[in-house]
Amino acid sequence: MLNIGLLGAGRIGNVHARAISAHSGSRLVAVSDATAENANKLAAEFGAKAQSSDEIIADPTIDAVLIATSTDTHSDLMEAATAAGKAVLCEKPVDLSLERAQACQRAVAKTGMPVMIGFNRRFDPSFGALKAALDAGEIGKAELLSITSFDPAPPPVSYIKVSGGLFRDMMIHDFDMANFIMGDAPVSISAVGSSVVDAAIGAAGDVDTAVVTLSYADGRIAVIKNSRRAVYGYDQRVELLGSEGLLQAQNMLENTVVKSTSSGVTGAKPTYFFLERYMPAYIAEWSAFVEAVTTRSPMPVTLDDGVTALAMAEAATRSARTGAPVNLSEYC
Amino acid sequence: MLNIGLLGAGRIGNVHARAISAHSGSRLVAVSDATAENANKLAAEFGAKAQSSDEIIADPTIDAVLIATSTDTHSDLMEAATAAGKAVLCEKPVDLSLERAQACQRAVAKTGMPVMIGFNRRFDPSFGALKAALDAGEIGKAELLSITSFDPAPPPVSYIKVSGGLFRDMMIHDFDMANFIMGDAPVSISAVGSSVVDAAIGAAGDVDTAVVTLSYADGRIAVIKNSRRAVYGYDQRVELLGSEGLLQAQNMLENTVVKSTSSGVTGAKPTYFFLERYMPAYIAEWSAFVEAVTTRSPMPVTLDDGVTALAMAEAATRSARTGAPVNLSEYC
Amino acid sequence: MLNIGLLGAGRIGNVHARAISAHSGSRLVAVSDATAENANKLAAEFGAKAQSSDEIIADPTIDAVLIATSTDTHSDLMEAATAAGKAVLCEKPVDLSLERAQACQRAVAKTGMPVMIGFNRRFDPSFGALKAALDAGEIGKAELLSITSFDPAPPPVSYIKVSGGLFRDMMIHDFDMANFIMGDAPVSISAVGSSVVDAAIGAAGDVDTAVVTLSYADGRIAVIKNSRRAVYGYDQRVELLGSEGLLQAQNMLENTVVKSTSSGVTGAKPTYFFLERYMPAYIAEWSAFVEAVTTRSPMPVTLDDGVTALAMAEAATRSARTGAPVNLSEYC
Amino acid sequence: MLNIGLLGAGRIGNVHARAISAHSGSRLVAVSDATAENANKLAAEFGAKAQSSDEIIADPTIDAVLIATSTDTHSDLMEAATAAGKAVLCEKPVDLSLERAQACQRAVAKTGMPVMIGFNRRFDPSFGALKAALDAGEIGKAELLSITSFDPAPPPVSYIKVSGGLFRDMMIHDFDMANFIMGDAPVSISAVGSSVVDAAIGAAGDVDTAVVTLSYADGRIAVIKNSRRAVYGYDQRVELLGSEGLLQAQNMLENTVVKSTSSGVTGAKPTYFFLERYMPAYIAEWSAFVEAVTTRSPMPVTLDDGVTALAMAEAATRSARTGAPVNLSEYC
Repeated sequence: MLNIGLLGAGRIGNVHARAISAHSGSRLVAVSDATAENANKLAAEFGAKAQSSDEIIADPTIDAVLIATSTDTHSDLMEAATAAGKAVLCEKPVDLSLERAQACQRAVAKTGMPVMIGFNRRFDPSFGALKAALDAGEIGKAELLSITSFDPAPPPVSYIKVSGGLFRDMMIHDFDMANFIMGDAPVSISAVGSSVVDAAIGAAGDVDTAVVTLSYADGRIAVIKNSRRAVYGYDQRVELLGSEGLLQAQNMLENTVVKSTSSGVTGAKPTYFFLERYMPAYIAEWSAFVEAVTTRSPMPVTLDDGVTALAMAEAATRSARTGAPVNLSEYC
Repeated sequence: MLNIGLLGAGRIGNVHARAISAHSGSRLVAVSDATAENANKLAAEFGAKAQSSDEIIADPTIDAVLIATSTDTHSDLMEAATAAGKAVLCEKPVDLSLERAQACQRAVAKTGMPVMIGFNRRFDPSFGALKAALDAGEIGKAELLSITSFDPAPPPVSYIKVSGGLFRDMMIHDFDMANFIMGDAPVSISAVGSSVVDAAIGAAGDVDTAVVTLSYADGRIAVIKNSRRAVYGYDQRVELLGSEGLLQAQNMLENTVVKSTSSGVTGAKPTYFFLERYMPAYIAEWSAFVEAVTTRSPMPVTLDDGVTALAMAEAATRSARTGAPVNLSEYC
Repeated sequence: MLNIGLLGAGRIGNVHARAISAHSGSRLVAVSDATAENANKLAAEFGAKAQSSDEIIADPTIDAVLIATSTDTHSDLMEAATAAGKAVLCEKPVDLSLERAQACQRAVAKTGMPVMIGFNRRFDPSFGALKAALDAGEIGKAELLSITSFDPAPPPVSYIKVSGGLFRDMMIHDFDMANFIMGDAPVSISAVGSSVVDAAIGAAGDVDTAVVTLSYADGRIAVIKNSRRAVYGYDQRVELLGSEGLLQAQNMLENTVVKSTSSGVTGAKPTYFFLERYMPAYIAEWSAFVEAVTTRSPMPVTLDDGVTALAMAEAATRSARTGAPVNLSEYC
Repeated sequence: MLNIGLLGAGRIGNVHARAISAHSGSRLVAVSDATAENANKLAAEFGAKAQSSDEIIADPTIDAVLIATSTDTHSDLMEAATAAGKAVLCEKPVDLSLERAQACQRAVAKTGMPVMIGFNRRFDPSFGALKAALDAGEIGKAELLSITSFDPAPPPVSYIKVSGGLFRDMMIHDFDMANFIMGDAPVSISAVGSSVVDAAIGAAGDVDTAVVTLSYADGRIAVIKNSRRAVYGYDQRVELLGSEGLLQAQNMLENTVVKSTSSGVTGAKPTYFFLERYMPAYIAEWSAFVEAVTTRSPMPVTLDDGVTALAMAEAATRSARTGAPVNLSEYC
């Protein structure tokens, strides 16, 4: 039974608190948050203590911490927690600064403690089944990957301004998905972006619609499409052409009802947003972390994975600005 | 917070124990089972006491009991529990004997205590959405209902022999589904059955494949198809033709991956069996029970509903034997 | 090259005229119709002569006739044409009177001339693929067949009155489809019908909504659902459960466009009615007839098939009236 | 009634001959081919004369010619035919040389004769329905377009060598589809290509897998994916994200049969290749040409459209070589 400290009691912290408590191999013992009230409330609900992050990290009875705080604190907390001998599951992205993330990577490496980055989509049952089918050779050799990832609605421009931009904030999930499926990082990244959804996003220096092409050393190609707005819901699809077939992971729907009327044949929309769509993935992610810590196995998603995805976001951001492809090797 | 006693710690008792514990308005305090070891194990897992059914029913601190014991004990336990002032959620079927069920119905009515019968499928999100669309007038007036309900594999013949037969054991769910959707019981029932899946089932006096047609007073028609074997999994579909359209609740699939190869385009199978398919329904069912008890509202599925479905099973059993339609009024 | 005389230049005669002309092995040489203007117009379009039915049947240069006249003339024309040594393709149904059809059957048998009945749905690519998959053993042994067959809108009551009723006029196609797929006729037929679509149809002594259950000697079961109204279009589906799987032939859609909006995910409706849905089937049907005549092979659909379907319609009509199952052996 | 001369009696010439003959407003009167035997055979089948291209173009009784010869003759024949006062439908691409195509464009313009380029996909019912839904405002304003276009199997390397390369030979259809849907040409084109399907294609200087991103002046983005090999058949899909929804034109399938077994749920493959998939489009294309010539209306696809698509192919070819985006204005 692992004793867990949860750093961050916001929306995603709440999701993790539930997964930690429901797992037979872990117990939520302490919760911290920048807003004391949040920590108190969540701690009370699960019979845990509300403490400061420092107290949790210093507590020798705590085996592992889950970092669900704001992005700018991730690197500091990972360094402190691993230095204190804790296993860590940290939410994505590692950092908005690639340099800071790489420094964190070196510091953590010295501690030898296991760190997992919360790329929850790797644990989605359908994406997992697609990857398993590929690995089982069901479509031969991978050739052309497409990732479609649209949010239902754009966040406020105030969020956009501190988000690090679409490539670091949103597409970083898709960069990791590409790495997960392709089993390798690309050599070159070419990005196009614009602000057709909301001109205010463009005015804030960001894009809301983007297409990124990834080229691999062996000729494989991947393309990622992002939009901040799909009015029909959270559109999360992966499609992979191989030498012997095509694999598609399609959207999950709210229900299976289909209505046929004189207006057409209508089915349910995709599950609305990430909390609905990826709830099973968050539970499986936590389970994988507990399993890896308990059995001292390699983490299924590493800090290196997090840094690579961030480097890709950095390269895409530059490519979208300059119009020219960027070699990933410039960042590694 | 309701204190709950769980009678029966078998497979379905385990499912309910989880739902009771996860609900913020209920707490599992005691568990009984014919096999003491089962009760001990489940009680330990959830921090409850292992007791006898009598002790649980006699315990004044327990607000409600969930009856998940073998069918032949349902009526006795419902009578005892309601006489002791407990609210009851009882698994289907009420009884294998319609007479006994009707006696129980009268006895329970005298106590005035609320009883809910566990027709879990009414709480399936897709069937619920279909019913809601009908009630919202989205396909006009209902005319022709079809229910497809196939199990993945037949149970052992030893089970068949004590099951009460396909109509009471399996199709009873579909009779209740028809009543739920049509909002009324039929006037006449016509059944055809055979044992094409396994001749041993026929030798045991039962059928494994059946089609039942229900005629309603206002001309509406429903047809239910059952098979004990669908090698591709649990096939649970409802389809309703109305004056202004068609509603279909299709199967839930194991995942959303589609593979296209030179052999065709292949998707996932339906979720395997009732525990997988109806897990969300069990949780919603428990929630509806807690809500009704707590707010002293009418039960969403009543003991009367359970007795009506049993009467329909009785009529279908006779129709399948004689070949002639049976009027439901003969049983009510 | 077969010289063909077409008897009947109505809507379905026009469809056949096109198929006859487009086929490289047949040539439309003569057309008759009760309304001379219809015959003249169609003959002119295809460079054929407009003649009387008698003239066409008497013409020694004509190899085969296609009978697309009103139902009450089918038996007389089949008898006359086969007596004159012509091969015949006759539209369904053979007759509204089973006695007259059986007399025709005997008379035609004496001539030894080949007669095919126009059950066009056997030539639908999807139903054909389903049958082929069954015959190839892809789902093991057939167990439970379901046929859904809904028209988009009811015909005028004036037509209903002379149609012979839903079972002879509409469900006769589905009786033949059941015979085609099951490879055998049922032993017992049980029908339920009502007039929920239009009370005027009930007042005219007919039903507009019906469910018929067919029981086979070996325990297999089939169920046919008919409605005169499906506002979303022509709903034509077949579903067959076998010992090793399920086969479904789903509707053809008007196009493949899917629209996702805040209202849901909407696809096209089924192709509207029989001329659209079964156009490829009419062409394949004609091709099969030409092939059978040219190679002196057995007809793919025989007059016996037509008489059997009519006997089933007769039995269903009686069962729907009396409420009791009817043995098909009473009619054969 | 238009008298039509068909130049080219190869595979696609045969398709057009059928469409010309079947149309009530056109008549095939003459056929030419580089191989006399081809012309003789096709002419005989349709009761036309076999002649030389020169004879056909010089024949004053011929109203229009359809050019289905090898690509290197397109420009010469278009110039000659329009100079002789004929309306022209010419197969794509206009030419492999953009310069030659532009010269042809100027020469044809001087004659004032109408020329249509055979971008048949614009006439596909599903792509047409998607475009109509966009124009009707059903998904608001277009933002992000995706075109997936995979051939079932690569052509011989000998063909690749004279094809002009993937962008001019294959993706040219998709460039025109993008122009059709977006209603405008892009300002910038960025291409990535490789030869993961067959190294011999790479050795011949071409690519077999490519992703091209198109950027529009107003911020819209389009992405086109091509592969020379999809073992499951001809994969032809279009997907358009708009401000109020998503439109998808999915593949046509060989039939509607779905088989569920213990291995999964399997449907039919896409229709195999362009002759099967686009046969209705070829017929509709010819009909649109006849309509435009007959009513002296503007051509639905112009020679300018053909030249624009060729310029985009030229730009993509260069971008794939250099790795840098190319402005389309460099070619116009």
